[in-house]
Amino acid sequence: MAQDLIKVGIVGGTGYTGVELLRLLSQHPSVELAVITSRAEAGTAVADIFPNLRGHVALKFSAPDPKMLAQCDVVFFATPNGTAMTQVPELLRAGVRVIDLAADFRLKDAKLWQHWYGMPHACPELLSEAVYGLPELNRAAIKTARLVANPGCYPTSVTLGLLPLVEQGLVDIQQLIADAKSGVSGAGRKAEMNLMLGEAGENFKAYAVPGHRHLPEIVQSLAQAAGQPVALTFVPHLVPMIRGIHATLYSKLKDSKTDLQALYEQRYRDDPFVDVLPQGAHPETKSVRGANVCRIAVHRPQGGDTVVVLSVIDNLVKGAAGQAVQNMNILFGLDECVGLTSAALMP
Amino acid sequence: MAQDLIKVGIVGGTGYTGVELLRLLSQHPSVELAVITSRAEAGTAVADIFPNLRGHVALKFSAPDPKMLAQCDVVFFATPNGTAMTQVPELLRAGVRVIDLAADFRLKDAKLWQHWYGMPHACPELLSEAVYGLPELNRAAIKTARLVANPGCYPTSVTLGLLPLVEQGLVDIQQLIADAKSGVSGAGRKAEMNLMLGEAGENFKAYAVPGHRHLPEIVQSLAQAAGQPVALTFVPHLVPMIRGIHATLYSKLKDSKTDLQALYEQRYRDDPFVDVLPQGAHPETKSVRGANVCRIAVHRPQGGDTVVVLSVIDNLVKGAAGQAVQNMNILFGLDECVGLTSAALMP
Amino acid sequence: MAQDLIKVGIVGGTGYTGVELLRLLSQHPSVELAVITSRAEAGTAVADIFPNLRGHVALKFSAPDPKMLAQCDVVFFATPNGTAMTQVPELLRAGVRVIDLAADFRLKDAKLWQHWYGMPHACPELLSEAVYGLPELNRAAIKTARLVANPGCYPTSVTLGLLPLVEQGLVDIQQLIADAKSGVSGAGRKAEMNLMLGEAGENFKAYAVPGHRHLPEIVQSLAQAAGQPVALTFVPHLVPMIRGIHATLYSKLKDSKTDLQALYEQRYRDDPFVDVLPQGAHPETKSVRGANVCRIAVHRPQGGDTVVVLSVIDNLVKGAAGQAVQNMNILFGLDECVGLTSAALMP
Amino acid sequence: MAQDLIKVGIVGGTGYTGVELLRLLSQHPSVELAVITSRAEAGTAVADIFPNLRGHVALKFSAPDPKMLAQCDVVFFATPNGTAMTQVPELLRAGVRVIDLAADFRLKDAKLWQHWYGMPHACPELLSEAVYGLPELNRAAIKTARLVANPGCYPTSVTLGLLPLVEQGLVDIQQLIADAKSGVSGAGRKAEMNLMLGEAGENFKAYAVPGHRHLPEIVQSLAQAAGQPVALTFVPHLVPMIRGIHATLYSKLKDSKTDLQALYEQRYRDDPFVDVLPQGAHPETKSVRGANVCRIAVHRPQGGDTVVVLSVIDNLVKGAAGQAVQNMNILFGLDECVGLTSAALMP
Repeated sequence: MAQDLIKVGIVGGTGYTGVELLRLLSQHPSVELAVITSRAEAGTAVADIFPNLRGHVALKFSAPDPKMLAQCDVVFFATPNGTAMTQVPELLRAGVRVIDLAADFRLKDAKLWQHWYGMPHACPELLSEAVYGLPELNRAAIKTARLVANPGCYPTSVTLGLLPLVEQGLVDIQQLIADAKSGVSGAGRKAEMNLMLGEAGENFKAYAVPGHRHLPEIVQSLAQAAGQPVALTFVPHLVPMIRGIHATLYSKLKDSKTDLQALYEQRYRDDPFVDVLPQGAHPETKSVRGANVCRIAVHRPQGGDTVVVLSVIDNLVKGAAGQAVQNMNILFGLDECVGLTSAALMP
Repeated sequence: MAQDLIKVGIVGGTGYTGVELLRLLSQHPSVELAVITSRAEAGTAVADIFPNLRGHVALKFSAPDPKMLAQCDVVFFATPNGTAMTQVPELLRAGVRVIDLAADFRLKDAKLWQHWYGMPHACPELLSEAVYGLPELNRAAIKTARLVANPGCYPTSVTLGLLPLVEQGLVDIQQLIADAKSGVSGAGRKAEMNLMLGEAGENFKAYAVPGHRHLPEIVQSLAQAAGQPVALTFVPHLVPMIRGIHATLYSKLKDSKTDLQALYEQRYRDDPFVDVLPQGAHPETKSVRGANVCRIAVHRPQGGDTVVVLSVIDNLVKGAAGQAVQNMNILFGLDECVGLTSAALMP
Repeated sequence: MAQDLIKVGIVGGTGYTGVELLRLLSQHPSVELAVITSRAEAGTAVADIFPNLRGHVALKFSAPDPKMLAQCDVVFFATPNGTAMTQVPELLRAGVRVIDLAADFRLKDAKLWQHWYGMPHACPELLSEAVYGLPELNRAAIKTARLVANPGCYPTSVTLGLLPLVEQGLVDIQQLIADAKSGVSGAGRKAEMNLMLGEAGENFKAYAVPGHRHLPEIVQSLAQAAGQPVALTFVPHLVPMIRGIHATLYSKLKDSKTDLQALYEQRYRDDPFVDVLPQGAHPETKSVRGANVCRIAVHRPQGGDTVVVLSVIDNLVKGAAGQAVQNMNILFGLDECVGLTSAALMP
Repeated sequence: MAQDLIKVGIVGGTGYTGVELLRLLSQHPSVELAVITSRAEAGTAVADIFPNLRGHVALKFSAPDPKMLAQCDVVFFATPNGTAMTQVPELLRAGVRVIDLAADFRLKDAKLWQHWYGMPHACPELLSEAVYGLPELNRAAIKTARLVANPGCYPTSVTLGLLPLVEQGLVDIQQLIADAKSGVSGAGRKAEMNLMLGEAGENFKAYAVPGHRHLPEIVQSLAQAAGQPVALTFVPHLVPMIRGIHATLYSKLKDSKTDLQALYEQRYRDDPFVDVLPQGAHPETKSVRGANVCRIAVHRPQGGDTVVVLSVIDNLVKGAAGQAVQNMNILFGLDECVGLTSAALMP
């Protein structure tokens, strides 16, 4: 069966999404890890940086080499924003499929992208072709895509939480609120002062209240679902933990007669990685730690017209590397769940 | 000056609010700690249960004795809900002033109290006399009170955050949202499964979304400030840390021309324990750890009509024991800040 | 192939070793989870208590039923100490193989067992037959065992760390020191005050310095390896984290010429779950989180005659459930690694 | 009384020992904070970097200015190693007393200092004059010192733990072992990868086993106490918490008849900041969080000849800033406890 293995390249891979991608791909039965590049770590064994992979990944980081990448079936970019867009056109021309875990191809509007990311886009002509890789929203398009823009972590949790309400037009889409909380790994593997244990430990705070880059990404997906513009207030917070996002979503019901529980269960019936919890439940981030799943619960406190949706994911799995593997499975016609069936680690 | 010392009794005191009250009172220059009762721990030295107080508190817990308490100038109740109401009438008759850190006297409506606390109130006739001890709302009434109902931790952070907006009628008071996050000490010193490090560590979740006891308390204060009923959606969350509450408050501006920063600064100009941060700030819970202060910042993301207020306190200090000492200072005509001037512990 | 599946029963299983056993067994390709018993939770779905297993384990807890257990090929006991010994004799008579994750069959000396566990042993006649399930020490015996005593978590990390030195008689076995540190899950899933996040968080302490139950277990294994009695000082500590044990082991070299690095690499060459790190390394607990592996490094600070061995495991995996599955694999002639090849979760 | 205030300058002060020094000095009744310098932060308000000090410290950081420092009564250096030694000679000539919280003056041997700190010493002639500021060892000398070398955090906990045994010659001083564990703030306020919450959280590891700079410092003090050379194995570990050091100390008794409990109580009878716990106790780091105290317990497991001493401090207080203030009090003839009487924050 070796001839059937998907030949995979990874660009970047020294960050948290990188190590998680390596963890998942090293155990994927249909994948051959062919190359992983890092300019800074060229020559270093992957397992020397990520000791959890000792005995699992024998690869060394190599210097970026377009020719080697061009021989892959698919290349994942686990790079900072702004890197993938400089290399993707050449790879696509070589017939390689690309899954970008950064933000380069998430927004359809190049000007909006430039506004939020502070640089001009290097290949705006690809933005319309790129498929936003949220399978629960765009599964059909992903199947035939050449270029998948893997969603951000906050957008995955918020969008999946609001999608059924927005698609059905049940809530006032001019007054959506997403109060989101993330563990520190969401900020990446960077030595920044505010992410140190001495600073972020035993502490809780909001950040970027005036505006966060994930706002336009969420708004774009919800507008697609609604068929019209939406207005969202998005407030992210930093939680003193490593993995996990919890989005608490508030919206105002226009019609109070719909059975929301049934709506959510129906909407996600065929999505293997969205788990609608029973009525009254409170999902917790530890129930998804290490697993490619989004767990959702829907509430109407005191029976009023405010819907409260609770949505949790592991930001590094369903919010990044796991979803990227899910997209790869779809791209290559595999069962969507291959390599993604591990249960969460608890406690 | 010994004749001027306030003779203090504490009922309960084996929980987290108890040890914090002891820490603060043991260093208060105008206080004589006369008696601390605990049926379960009678005879045990306080410092044997709370080793941080070794060398600071020489008292032993004693069995409850109404006569000893009756000789105090003030008695603090740091007991579970439902205890204070059975002992307060007798203490008041003895001329003792009472500050209850539990919920027994927080609601004005005895039926509402029974609904949320699951038992009939033992002395409903005192509910109207009891003063809700939020100095920033009721300072004048506290000065002459016999019985102070010390506010809950969530209500302190939420109410202080919304008060200026609600008092001035600037927001739609039918659509208030309080997304609140608390460290585990807010749940008290109880051996409960969901509060264990193995369960609550590296985890984040909402709880009590259908309804939490602090909801009617907040609503009562905001209605007092508004002069009319208000509607609030209140969602509490458990944060994997020990101390601290962060309330993220959402409301819809009716009038978008008010200078909100000036409004907040003006409102709290004379309140020594409310700190309005500069425009654009994001308060963090560690900046108030161990200190009797509420730090607040006001935002209008993207200049829209949604106001986002961020409000942080230490749930055990401004949210419990510190506020109780602040109330004691007011009751006895002391400078409101005596014994409460320590800076927060950071990191 | 279904006829080849090993039919597995679990007694207990509502604790942390239980959920970890379920997580591992639910993904083991040769296992059929037949029954899991819990008197307290009979009728409850496993996934209702452990939400990480939603979609992975469909079983419900059932009331203990000897007949159902007797139809299994192997029964795991994930019960408190003292339970397995009352049921094992009957299961063995029924031809069922047993792996006890508790301490009932770990000590060979019934009197010693009674001394440390505070009750008489219910079937002392089985103690000599029971095989102490540390594969790296007793692999051959495990292959043919009916009853495996799965080692304790501290003993696994300490014994593996000292084994090469003690077997070769290289150190003074009258002066062994094991300074061990464990995350809170090592204490089990119990609502105890000292394990609460408010107590154990942001805190570090030693406990049980006068004597801990794992001391005689370690001493027994080391004496077996040495062929003579050994003396060990064992000091356990509680670390404010959930999973992981780090043992720091001190012993005095008798012969300073041995190449310790080569000794360790040689000793564990054929043990798939012991990873001897390169010279100079410092293993960290996160590198084994969720994985069935013990990572070890050997040091001689300043080239003196004190050897310092660092040994880390995940207390719930190589220190409990993973090792139990490893033992099952050996018992049933499977590849020792089946179902245990997941990489650790990092970060 | 203003004429009596001690005029204090701080050099550095943007790190964790700096903010802790500011917290303590801002509440010290005999101190006037005159100047705090930081080249990088000149012009920034202290409270803008350390929001816990809002309302407590009005100072701004200023550019280093020898003239301003020369007008102080005492200058604290809270700078990286190697800075104080370039400025201290001039300050001493100006009659200013100096307390260095870094390592520049801790070792008496300039060659040894150069070996461990990797640079030549700038003023080796001052090393013999400098007094090692462990009051429990050198109180008399501190009283008349011009230059105090404030001890390191590990050395404070280890030395206080071993002092009584070593002074009395009760143990084999060629086989001392210190297994020490520290929270991350001990490494300072630096954005380093291994100190991030994503790396250090939920993790435990040893580091610097081949050799740590605090080793020669401890050895020097113990040799002073013993009157002869000592040999120590010192292994530091990183604990996933912010504050606190726990030293577990092992030594071999030469004489098993001494009453160790009485020895320790007697030795520290007159030291207000060393608390010898009752027989059998296990001190915990949270009992000293924020407080200037070292709590110690002495054990002889199973009555053998290995003594195990447990010693805890807050690395930023008794291990740094608090001890520096204690030294200042001694230098200026104040009560040793002034400004240091706060109880630890618990939980």
